[in-house]
Amino acid sequence: MIVVMKAGAAKKERDAVTRRIKELGYTPHIIHGTTRDVIGAVGDERGKSVLQTLESMQGVESVVPILQPYKLASKEVKKEASIVRISDTLAIGGKELVVMAGPCSVENEEQIIESAIAVKAAGAQMLRGGAFKPRTSPYSFQGLEEEGLKLLAKARETTGLPFVTEVIDPDSVDLVASYSDMLQIGARNSQNFALLKKVGQIDKPILLKRGMSMTIQEFLMSAEYIMSEGNQSVILCERGIRTFETATRNTLDLSAIPVLKSKTHLPVVIDPSHGTGNYRYIAPMSFAAVAAGADGLIIEVHPDPEKASSDGPQSLKPKKFQALMDKLRLFAEAADKTLGA
Amino acid sequence: MIVVMKAGAAKKERDAVTRRIKELGYTPHIIHGTTRDVIGAVGDERGKSVLQTLESMQGVESVVPILQPYKLASKEVKKEASIVRISDTLAIGGKELVVMAGPCSVENEEQIIESAIAVKAAGAQMLRGGAFKPRTSPYSFQGLEEEGLKLLAKARETTGLPFVTEVIDPDSVDLVASYSDMLQIGARNSQNFALLKKVGQIDKPILLKRGMSMTIQEFLMSAEYIMSEGNQSVILCERGIRTFETATRNTLDLSAIPVLKSKTHLPVVIDPSHGTGNYRYIAPMSFAAVAAGADGLIIEVHPDPEKASSDGPQSLKPKKFQALMDKLRLFAEAADKTLGA
Amino acid sequence: MIVVMKAGAAKKERDAVTRRIKELGYTPHIIHGTTRDVIGAVGDERGKSVLQTLESMQGVESVVPILQPYKLASKEVKKEASIVRISDTLAIGGKELVVMAGPCSVENEEQIIESAIAVKAAGAQMLRGGAFKPRTSPYSFQGLEEEGLKLLAKARETTGLPFVTEVIDPDSVDLVASYSDMLQIGARNSQNFALLKKVGQIDKPILLKRGMSMTIQEFLMSAEYIMSEGNQSVILCERGIRTFETATRNTLDLSAIPVLKSKTHLPVVIDPSHGTGNYRYIAPMSFAAVAAGADGLIIEVHPDPEKASSDGPQSLKPKKFQALMDKLRLFAEAADKTLGA
Amino acid sequence: MIVVMKAGAAKKERDAVTRRIKELGYTPHIIHGTTRDVIGAVGDERGKSVLQTLESMQGVESVVPILQPYKLASKEVKKEASIVRISDTLAIGGKELVVMAGPCSVENEEQIIESAIAVKAAGAQMLRGGAFKPRTSPYSFQGLEEEGLKLLAKARETTGLPFVTEVIDPDSVDLVASYSDMLQIGARNSQNFALLKKVGQIDKPILLKRGMSMTIQEFLMSAEYIMSEGNQSVILCERGIRTFETATRNTLDLSAIPVLKSKTHLPVVIDPSHGTGNYRYIAPMSFAAVAAGADGLIIEVHPDPEKASSDGPQSLKPKKFQALMDKLRLFAEAADKTLGA
Repeated sequence: MIVVMKAGAAKKERDAVTRRIKELGYTPHIIHGTTRDVIGAVGDERGKSVLQTLESMQGVESVVPILQPYKLASKEVKKEASIVRISDTLAIGGKELVVMAGPCSVENEEQIIESAIAVKAAGAQMLRGGAFKPRTSPYSFQGLEEEGLKLLAKARETTGLPFVTEVIDPDSVDLVASYSDMLQIGARNSQNFALLKKVGQIDKPILLKRGMSMTIQEFLMSAEYIMSEGNQSVILCERGIRTFETATRNTLDLSAIPVLKSKTHLPVVIDPSHGTGNYRYIAPMSFAAVAAGADGLIIEVHPDPEKASSDGPQSLKPKKFQALMDKLRLFAEAADKTLGA
Repeated sequence: MIVVMKAGAAKKERDAVTRRIKELGYTPHIIHGTTRDVIGAVGDERGKSVLQTLESMQGVESVVPILQPYKLASKEVKKEASIVRISDTLAIGGKELVVMAGPCSVENEEQIIESAIAVKAAGAQMLRGGAFKPRTSPYSFQGLEEEGLKLLAKARETTGLPFVTEVIDPDSVDLVASYSDMLQIGARNSQNFALLKKVGQIDKPILLKRGMSMTIQEFLMSAEYIMSEGNQSVILCERGIRTFETATRNTLDLSAIPVLKSKTHLPVVIDPSHGTGNYRYIAPMSFAAVAAGADGLIIEVHPDPEKASSDGPQSLKPKKFQALMDKLRLFAEAADKTLGA
Repeated sequence: MIVVMKAGAAKKERDAVTRRIKELGYTPHIIHGTTRDVIGAVGDERGKSVLQTLESMQGVESVVPILQPYKLASKEVKKEASIVRISDTLAIGGKELVVMAGPCSVENEEQIIESAIAVKAAGAQMLRGGAFKPRTSPYSFQGLEEEGLKLLAKARETTGLPFVTEVIDPDSVDLVASYSDMLQIGARNSQNFALLKKVGQIDKPILLKRGMSMTIQEFLMSAEYIMSEGNQSVILCERGIRTFETATRNTLDLSAIPVLKSKTHLPVVIDPSHGTGNYRYIAPMSFAAVAAGADGLIIEVHPDPEKASSDGPQSLKPKKFQALMDKLRLFAEAADKTLGA
Repeated sequence: MIVVMKAGAAKKERDAVTRRIKELGYTPHIIHGTTRDVIGAVGDERGKSVLQTLESMQGVESVVPILQPYKLASKEVKKEASIVRISDTLAIGGKELVVMAGPCSVENEEQIIESAIAVKAAGAQMLRGGAFKPRTSPYSFQGLEEEGLKLLAKARETTGLPFVTEVIDPDSVDLVASYSDMLQIGARNSQNFALLKKVGQIDKPILLKRGMSMTIQEFLMSAEYIMSEGNQSVILCERGIRTFETATRNTLDLSAIPVLKSKTHLPVVIDPSHGTGNYRYIAPMSFAAVAAGADGLIIEVHPDPEKASSDGPQSLKPKKFQALMDKLRLFAEAADKTLGA
């Protein structure tokens, strides 16, 4: 941590700062600049919020953190890429590009089974589908809940595809974990720390979505929450951030892929459906994600998007998804990844 | 809802859209434009997510919602301003400007009692203090939990000030409600729908903070979640939104005050501490909030900010808070509000 | 400037960095941290873009600037607030709150004279009106150009009000300066450096608008551009920044007032018309701006907004402007400013 | 344009709106909704800013535009993709992927010649280099100006590579056009309408960069400015938008590629150097851009980035650029494009 003193700060003020740095267990180190002094606080900054309080001291202009506040998620602690195992035959983070696909919500047996068969036929290795839905309106369809989980399990039986589904509160974590192969934490819960702690205590992989206005650093801190409770099987999912642009529902931040790859060992997956909010843009953004180094994709596919109970405009029909997968293979190869058999 | 057809869309496509509009229970109404057609879907749009799926139909360019998706929170449903009662002698939303003040976190008995006495002396009508803390780092101080609630209750006994404190998961709602006079939903939980539903079922006022990247409309939808479960005592709190600017921790959106006042009957409170992240800017932004029509303020005050276990840089010392309150009285008067005795 | 080395950077890499720092004329100063080293580069950072290139050296994680890149605009160089003189009897930045008002565009003689008379009657001390209009569409009204300047001059003759008007390219600076009392640089030209340099060479006050996505620091750098050419009479104008929120045309960043006041000696003026884009929100945001410490306001007033050739929705009718001014007086007093006679 | 009336607006108010719509030359068309009326204004909306003024009428809630405000840039007017010719042998927008590369600034003869030879050897078809530099600080290197143009021409002679360079004010357009093969309008001048008009009058291709906080629609309006003056050879360049994220200098919006391709016939080029601000992220984002359908790339390459007079941290060394180009070929093929011989 670097404490920048004001130009013309008094010696007394500087002394108070160095004294406080020592009290907090760090070693102060002063650099006398031409117009102002700068004081380095040497030590482990993990509890940095306390050092940040130096900012309220007399004569202090600002406090600049140097170390990243996360450890377990950091590449400095674990250099080699993490491979998160989903099943005996499937893992995310290795050479195989993993595509998860399926409808936004599970609506009924026919719809989810039909979806599962279609996405498997096209080459997807995993099924997605929402049973507990976090909807912005209390008047919108809220999901089939446990009934939805059962239908997802039936679709898994039918097709052999493992599935990922969202969990939206701590109380239903055990229930959702008892059915699913991977639990998703949605964007709106990405800083729901009670929920993060709870999924950190189970033994199932977690797909953690980036919050709509979450910095990369905050994203890794949320992963750290899960990991610090014991669960190291975290997969990061970029799904679009909120910006001023309205031509897309969100702005898909693909530069998050190389940035994350430079900072963490965790796998990175992209959600081009929520990222753009428009089925027309899913294919090009999927190709781009793979080219940028993504380990996987999660894509909404619905047999009849016009009648979907949620997110129809951003769902692909099975035929279009098949075409996407066919072309995706070329980009996967160029990116030195394999896709399916 | 307005469906905008593509220029040159086929009659067949337009017919399919009008047919689907009827199936969904709305009445289609076509306007033939010079380059394209536009179809109005007349009816109640509350379940609008379904109408939105029309966007995936052939020949459709976009779907434009017309109605606001909230009802109970809307001024159209209830024209007169709501006054939320906190205690026999205190209410928010009326002529009295209400100031809530206190430390970010409850740290120990001395700190919270000292804070309560100081803020009361300066004219605050309500105490604030965190017992359950949603911290971005798992390694930061997470709050005293129930012990903190007990200390807040003791401070209330000592000073007579009712208090507001945050609740961060559905399971502790009843516990927090049993101690406190108002429950706060923090910015990071502003779309934690499981939590919103739960606080909608209790009989205590809720201070709902706006999420960091929440639109005004989404903010009102979160209020609607609470209200649709039965609890009408919702107070909206703007606490800064996330923008590109880094000179302040967030960008305090004071225009939210007149915008909210034009759309909802719920009271509006401003949090200049989180809104700016810097104690130097709290006083001017407090004055501005009141001038813009706020019903209240929530301000962080700590007896010793340099040693605070959280948010020290944005906390005022009691003496500075006293000076703020003295000057605030002038602006409250200009805004035709009363402040304290 | 602080150079943060990577964890585990080689001594050879660190040596190369210190060598390069010396070559650039700075003194390196190393702090050995627990996990990484940090190197301070002591010296004047004004040409900091060169130091920034250290970021491309082997072993370097990041480069953190310490000094502000502006000098003339800085409060460190000039502590007392600047008062910019507009005429013998009018100055901005002192105890008098200055209100500039008038239509977005000058449309014809009747319209501008009528506007000038109305805003003067309500207490405005200065007239505003666009003769050269920077419109986002090439098909929109582009302004009356020199004819507009002549009409503004006529309105000044009639009412005695000095006027401010926008200049949009270097070639017309002299022309606009020959008619007007203050030149405005619009938000879209706030980093049009050729134009900034040119207005830096004239002897008229400049009203510099903040760009839509300009940080406070970039804003001050644009002021520095003008000042470094010789013209010290710069007034800063916040007019709303671009965020995700669409309920207002822009998000008026009133915290810019105390932030700017802490960093620069230049006067600060607020434009609530562009800042909100909606006449309904102008009054509350004007009151808030004054409460937050603004030195002036610039407000759009049009005798017949429904027929305005530009920006009608954000223009006040004279009667509403009169009401605003009457109430504004109370807030000006609370803020210890005077308004008009 | 759709005029949404307030719930409960009076018939008198609705009549005034329809009357005004007729006066403006449009045909009103009323839809009576369940809670409010909506009035369509049928006609060409190109001068839509006038219709927007309806928003200030009594009883009007909002005005929703339906048509895009641009014509010449629109795919509705010209369906087939435009191919912009740069030289007898080079064009942008066709099957060939075009890579422009070179240093941020032209510094001296050796540097620019060396750069040109290196980027040509790696497969770039065009040279880039700044002679007039728009720098945020008046104290930074401002470019070699005409001397720089001469050196670029010399580099073209040596290597046969045509070059693109930035123009920053209307007065130097003719000078820059007399030397260069394509003129660049920088992000900070993307709404400098005087400059856009001027380059619309010359007969050279224009590389128009997207402004930092420019919507796709505004971007196309700026292209329309150029095209409406006669010059149809416009190439759009996405170079990163400003968001809250600070891990990258800007957020490269690759979804702009499919969005633009769906709205305009103009070619789209990506600048991953400014888009990320970090040389480490240039290669993956280049691959992603091509996978998403970009027609070209513009990349900063400098023989010695650590000593560059500007933008060193985001410049690639020639060897790294060579490696990028080698791998880029694979992605170009997957995207059905050709790259070089």
